[in-house]
Amino acid sequence: MIRVVLLGAGNVAQHLYTALCNQTSVEVIQCYNRKGSKLHPDQKKELVTNTLTELVDADIYILAISDDAIEEVSSNLPFTNRLVVHTSGSVPMDTIHSSNRKGVFYPLQTFSKDKTVDFSTIPFCLEAENEKDYNLLKELGVTLSQKLYKISSQQRNALHVSAVFVNNFTNHLFSIGNDICSDNDIPFEILHPLIRETADKIATMNPDNAQTGPAIRNDHKTINRHIKFLSDTTQKELYQTLTKAIQSKYGKKL
Amino acid sequence: MIRVVLLGAGNVAQHLYTALCNQTSVEVIQCYNRKGSKLHPDQKKELVTNTLTELVDADIYILAISDDAIEEVSSNLPFTNRLVVHTSGSVPMDTIHSSNRKGVFYPLQTFSKDKTVDFSTIPFCLEAENEKDYNLLKELGVTLSQKLYKISSQQRNALHVSAVFVNNFTNHLFSIGNDICSDNDIPFEILHPLIRETADKIATMNPDNAQTGPAIRNDHKTINRHIKFLSDTTQKELYQTLTKAIQSKYGKKL
Ligand SMILES: NC(=O)c1ccc[n+]([C@@H]2O[C@H](COP(=O)([O-])OP(=O)(O)OC[C@H]3O[C@@H](n4cnc5c(N)ncnc54)[C@H](OP(=O)(O)O)[C@@H]3O)[C@@H](O)[C@H]2O)c1
Ligand SMILES: NC(=O)c1ccc[n+]([C@@H]2O[C@H](COP(=O)([O-])OP(=O)(O)OC[C@H]3O[C@@H](n4cnc5c(N)ncnc54)[C@H](OP(=O)(O)O)[C@@H]3O)[C@@H](O)[C@H]2O)c1
Repeated sequence: MIRVVLLGAGNVAQHLYTALCNQTSVEVIQCYNRKGSKLHPDQKKELVTNTLTELVDADIYILAISDDAIEEVSSNLPFTNRLVVHTSGSVPMDTIHSSNRKGVFYPLQTFSKDKTVDFSTIPFCLEAENEKDYNLLKELGVTLSQKLYKISSQQRNALHVSAVFVNNFTNHLFSIGNDICSDNDIPFEILHPLIRETADKIATMNPDNAQTGPAIRNDHKTINRHIKFLSDTTQKELYQTLTKAIQSKYGKKL
Repeated sequence: MIRVVLLGAGNVAQHLYTALCNQTSVEVIQCYNRKGSKLHPDQKKELVTNTLTELVDADIYILAISDDAIEEVSSNLPFTNRLVVHTSGSVPMDTIHSSNRKGVFYPLQTFSKDKTVDFSTIPFCLEAENEKDYNLLKELGVTLSQKLYKISSQQRNALHVSAVFVNNFTNHLFSIGNDICSDNDIPFEILHPLIRETADKIATMNPDNAQTGPAIRNDHKTINRHIKFLSDTTQKELYQTLTKAIQSKYGKKL
C-alpha cells in the first residue's frame, strides 16, 4: 500500500485525488490546502488540513500546487528526508527544498475543471534523485497509467516548450480559423473533421511527411491571394511568419 | 439514378470513385484522365478514356483535377449547357468555362494516398448557378455524407484560408514539437495524447475559452525561459510572434 499525502486543491489535485482514490494499492491518507477544502464531497473532513505542521507520515507527498508556490511550500514542510514530488511540467526538480528527497510526478495533459480525465491514456514524466524513489514513483504511476517515462528536468523543460507549440499555439490557430469563419458566416463545425484528421495523422505519420499546403508547394499565387484576403494585421503577420518557417524548413531539403 | 463522369486520376478522384461506386443511386458511367488509367483494378477498361471528345452524356461531370487545370480542361469540353463541377477549395466557381452550367462539389478534408476515407464524416461545400443544379449536387452529396453546406465561392476562399491555419500551420507546429523532442532524446509519442485532447476540445469548447499557456497568463518568466531555450532562430521567431498574437487578442478583452 502506497500512502500518499496530496497538497493543493486545484485542477490537478482534484483529478489526481479522484483517480488515486479508485486504486486499491494506494491510499490518500491526507489532503492539505490553504482553505482546508475537501477534494470530493465524500471525503472525510478529518482527512483534510490547512496547516502544514499537522501533516502525517506518508510514503509520498505530492505538491499539486501552482508552480510559483513549490519552492516556498516545500521549504515549510515540518519534516525531513521524506519523498516530496511536484506535478509541474516546467519547474526543475531542484526547486523542491533539499531538506527532503525530491521527485517529479508530471502528468503530461491539459486538464479542464469540468471534464473527466481518463488517466490511463496520460503519459507521466517521472524523475527522482535515486533509484529507490524512482521505483516508488513508478509503482504509484502504474496504478494510473501504462505510459511512464523517465524524464530529466532538462528534458522536461524541452517537453514543456514543445507542449506550448502543439497545445497552446495550435489552439490559437484554431481560434483564428474560428474567427475567419464567423466573419464570413460559416459555421466553424465545418472545420472540425479536418482538425480531427490533422491531429489523428501524427499517430501514424511523421509530421514532416504529413506537411501539405501552399507554403510547402511554393504556391505563390495562393499565398498572395490569402495574404491579400486577410485584413487583420496580426493574422497576416502570422500567415507570413508560418509560411516562411515552412519554406525555410523544407526548402533546405527540396 | 445520377449518372456521373469523373475527370482526373489523383487523390480525390480515386477516393471519390471508390465511394461513388458503392452507392446504389449513383453510376459512374465513365472516367477521363490523360493517361487513360483505371481508377480501380476492377474498373472495365472501356469505361476509361484519355480523350475529351469521347466523353459520353451524363448528369454531372466532376473535375477532380489540379486547381490550375480546371480552367483549361473545362474550356476543352466537347459539349455545352451540361453541369460541370470542380472539387477545389480555392478555385472560384466561375473559373469553369461558361459554355456549361457550373458548380462546386468540394469535400473539406485532407486526403492521403494510402489512407481509406470515411466520406460520411466529411463536410461537402456545394455551390451551383441555379437551384435545380444545386439540388442535384445535394442529391449526389447526400449519398456520401449528411454534412452538406451551401457555400459561396467567396466563403469557400475564407474557408480555405482557415483550413491553412488549422491544418497546414497546425501540422507545422506539430513538426516543431517533434524536432524539439528528437533534439532532446524524448519520444514524440509522449505528446500524442496532448495533441489529441487539444483537437478534441474544439468539439465541445470555443477555442477562445480553451486557450491556456504562458502567453495568455502573461507569464513573462516562463516565456523568457522558453525563448532562451530555443536555439533555432525560426522557432524563436515563431514562438515570439504567436505569443504576441495571443496577447494582443486576449489583452484587449482582459
Ligand atoms: N492544469 C493543467 O492542465 C496541468 C497539467 C499538468 C501539470 N500541471 C501542474 O500541476 C500543478 C497544479 O496546477 P493546477 O492546474 O492544479 O493549478 P490550479 O488549478 O491553479 O491550483 C493551484 C493550487 O495551488 C494552490 N496554491 C497556490 N499557491 C499556494 C501557496 N503559496 N501555498 C499553498 N497552496 C498554494 C492553490 O491554492 P488556493 O486554492 O488556496 O489558491 C490551488 O489549490 C502546477 O505545478 C501545474 O504546472 C497542471
Ligand atoms: N488532396 C486533397 O486533400 C484535396 C482535398 C479536397 C479538394 N482537393 C481538390 O481536388 C482537386 C484534385 O486534387 P488531388 O489532390 O486529387 O490532386 P492530384 O492527386 O495531384 O491529382 C491531380 C489530377 O489532375 C490531373 N491533371 C492535372 N493537370 C491536368 C490537365 N491539364 N489535364 C487533365 N488532367 C490534369 C492529373 O493528371 P495526371 O495524373 O495525368 O498528371 C491528376 O489526375 C484539386 O482541385 C484539389 O484542390 C484536394
